[in-house]
Order: sequence, then structure tokens, then C-alpha cells
Amino acid sequence: MHPFDTAIALSPTPHQSFTGATSPAYANMVGPFGGTTAAVLLNAALRHPARLGDPIALTVNFASAVADGAFEITARAVRTNRSTQHWVIELAQGGEVAATATAVFAQRRETWSAPEAAMPADLPPPGSLPRQDLGGRLAWVQRYDMRFVEGGMPEPFDGREESGSRSIVWTRDDPPRPLDFASLAALCDSFFPRIFVRRRKPVPIGTVTLSTYFHADAAMLAAQAERPVLGIARALNFRNGYFDQTAEVWGDDGRLLASTHQMVYYRE
Amino acid sequence: MHPFDTAIALSPTPHQSFTGATSPAYANMVGPFGGTTAAVLLNAALRHPARLGDPIALTVNFASAVADGAFEITARAVRTNRSTQHWVIELAQGGEVAATATAVFAQRRETWSAPEAAMPADLPPPGSLPRQDLGGRLAWVQRYDMRFVEGGMPEPFDGREESGSRSIVWTRDDPPRPLDFASLAALCDSFFPRIFVRRRKPVPIGTVTLSTYFHADAAMLAAQAERPVLGIARALNFRNGYFDQTAEVWGDDGRLLASTHQMVYYRE
Repeated sequence: MHPFDTAIALSPTPHQSFTGATSPAYANMVGPFGGTTAAVLLNAALRHPARLGDPIALTVNFASAVADGAFEITARAVRTNRSTQHWVIELAQGGEVAATATAVFAQRRETWSAPEAAMPADLPPPGSLPRQDLGGRLAWVQRYDMRFVEGGMPEPFDGREESGSRSIVWTRDDPPRPLDFASLAALCDSFFPRIFVRRRKPVPIGTVTLSTYFHADAAMLAAQAERPVLGIARALNFRNGYFDQTAEVWGDDGRLLASTHQMVYYRE
Repeated sequence: MHPFDTAIALSPTPHQSFTGATSPAYANMVGPFGGTTAAVLLNAALRHPARLGDPIALTVNFASAVADGAFEITARAVRTNRSTQHWVIELAQGGEVAATATAVFAQRRETWSAPEAAMPADLPPPGSLPRQDLGGRLAWVQRYDMRFVEGGMPEPFDGREESGSRSIVWTRDDPPRPLDFASLAALCDSFFPRIFVRRRKPVPIGTVTLSTYFHADAAMLAAQAERPVLGIARALNFRNGYFDQTAEVWGDDGRLLASTHQMVYYRE
């Protein structure tokens, strides 16, 4: 079993909920990587017997630090329409809510379609770039093979502030795993906090809310398979304890798979 | 009373919820303008006795069309930490959920701060531009004084597809009203569907989810007062029934007030 599938595994309970547990393979500084928390919340809707269609959007709110260990997830389909379905999902530990999520699922139909943004051209292929090495400091970072075209983790953290925080990075699961909605949801939280890149200085941070839009359907994800996707991450503004962070995730055929946004708390 | 305050007015019920009603002054094609729905959901947390701090982020999911008339809103503070608070909010009509929301509130502290994106320079001031005139077709559009620098509503809808959908627009409430969190939340949904601008053709659309990040605090909003703000809206991708739309809202002093993202259903 792939460590990602272990991390998002859920067991149904008799009272219409699921239980799961954090996974050491995706440990963060404190508690689990937020990406696996997002993915396991989505997985509760993906695995729910009432599920209709595929994910279109997911918002996850990190209400408190998730502690290492067991958790319970409740997923409610609050509204099911002809082609769309709305979910409210909660993750609790010891009876206290640690994370909430909402998700929109839908059955897509073929329509007029057109890209508006384009993937940058003439990028070096992932095989030509070195893998980011953080010296094994964080387990979850080892679960991604990240190769930076620009904006990698500053080495060293010398505090010499940059004028921008954009990163361009080829990423895939490690060990390789075929892309699906759950792993894409997790990968959307794999972009390092922009404030580390901008300030070349680590400060205490925590994502408070994360929204991901799925532009890809299951067939596009299956076509991408295990190959690296391209991520482009940036920020608009850092002000008095909160900054935003946005990323696009592109397939290696140049099609947009997901766009993702988050608001992040920081101290100092 | 300003029509916006009428539209977001709430009365507490004995069982810890609020009642409100849609407002003809903000009528959309069918039901109310989504911006007022977003604002009244946020208002339930803003007015709640348990409220801590100011809004940092709001996600609204439009689960079904809101019908003209009365609604009930339940707001639960699912987690209150030292400086942050997480809300789950639901709007129901006739016992059925029509919209859900999550919100993050926080008490900000002074920290290192820096913009990363900048407002475009050398824009024509709002007074030098004509007001968008949609011929009174939609009530809610009359509630905004919109002056387009570029990307206004196509006139006529001739179906001659554009290569992009970017709009730059000065906007304020009409009649003028001092900006606050609720009105900023509504204004973030005032950008015309990008697909109308791109295709120069109206097609049936409906926002399914909308997230807004508040970069401004109450003092910045008070300083902006009634003067027009600058909005820049764009899309990344239109594919098989869903497109995304992103906007930044800038104060006229060049500071970012909000960034906002939505996923929109379309037919055809």
C-alpha cells in the first residue's frame, strides 16, 4: 500500500462517520502535513455511499493543530441537485473540531471549453534539475519529489529579503503514485510558505484556510498518471499576521489540472 | 437605511439563529444577487454574540438557487482559539439548505508586512470614465457604480470571442456607503461572469463556490470610506461546465483590500 493511501485511509463507523489516523510518513513540524488532512477530508466525501460525480471545489479550514493519532470525520451531503452536490465535512479529535471542509461535487457535461492562462513555455524538464534536499528535516517533504525551476527553499536562511516569492516547481509523489483527486488535493498544499521564500527566514506559520478548484476530470488525472506536474506559486500580500498564497498545477501536456488558494497565519 | 443594510439585516430567533429576507433592490435574474447572500452569511457571524475579531476569510457555497423571500441562518463558532475563530454557517429556506459558508475570524497583531503584487499604475480616475449602463436590466447592477478601464460588459453580445476576459473596473456602492467587511464581501461577487466577457455571449451560469480573503482590517476599510475601489478580474480556464474567476480589490491608495476566487457553473 502506498504511504499516501495509508495516510488517507478511512474506516466507516456504525453512526454514519469515518475514523482515520495521522501517518508518520507525512509528519510535519507539529502534527500531520496539511495536505493529507485536506485529502482525508475530501476522501470522506469520495468514499461516501451518497457521493454524486467528481470534486469541483474543496475548501479546508484548519481550526486547530491536528494532533498525531486517531480522528473521526463526519461528511454530510447537505444538498444534492441534478448534477451537483454540496458537502459539509468535519474532522474531530477527542470531541473537539480540529478541521472543517466544504466540497462541491458535480457531473460534468461536454461544453465549449478554452484555456485562458497558459503554462510557461520552454521550461527545463524535471529530469534536468536537481531534487530539493531539505536534509530529511520533515517527513512529508520526503513524500514529494520536488525539482525547482525557480524559487526553491532558501539555502541558507540568511534573512536577505527577496522582492518576490514566486516558485516554479516540478512535483510528483515519492514513491510515484498515479494522480487522483485526493493526491492532487494534497499536492496543492505542498508549496512551501511564500513567506519563507520572500524573507529567506523561517517564521512560525499555519494555513488557516485552503481552497482548491479541480479543473481536471478523472480522465485527465489518469492520463497524467505518475509523471511530475508543474506548480507555480505566488503571493499577493503579507500584512499583520496573514498572507495569501496562490498556485496553479499544470499537467505535463500543458493543461491546467487545479488552481489553489490559501490564507496563512504568520507570527513576527 | 441604505438598501444594502436592508438586504443583510438579520433578526435573532429564540433558538440561536437569525432570520432575514431577500431584497428587491438586489434582485438578480432569478433570486437575489450572490454578493448579498455572501454578505448576509458573513453578517450572521459578524453579529453573533460569540464573535472574536474581524474576518480573515469567507467561503460561500451556493447549494441551490435562493428563492425570493425569507430565510433562516444558523452560525456556529465551531472552534475559538486565542486569536482565531472558525465558523460554519448555513442558510435554509423551508427547511432545505440553500447555501453554506465557512469563515475565519482573527485578531491581527502588528508584524513585518509587505505587499508583493502592486496595483496597476497610471489608471484613469473613475470620474473620467463613463458609468456602465446595462439599461436597468438587473436591480443589483444598479446598486454598483461601475466604471470600466477595460473589459466591460460586451455591447452588443455579438459572439465574437475574445482571447481574454480581464476586466479593470472602479466600483462603489450606489448610493454611496462607507466600505465595511460585509459590503466588501458583496462587492467581491460583483465582477461579471468572465465567460460573458470572453465569449461576448450570455450563457446560463451560476457560481457554485466563492472564497474571499480580507487583507484589510477595519481601519483600512474606514479610511477607504465611500470612494471607489479598483477591481481586477480574470479567469484561468473554462472547461466542460466550470470556469474559475479571480479578482483583486484595491483601495484607491494602492493597498490591497481583498482577493477573491470563485468556481462558476456554465451551460453550453
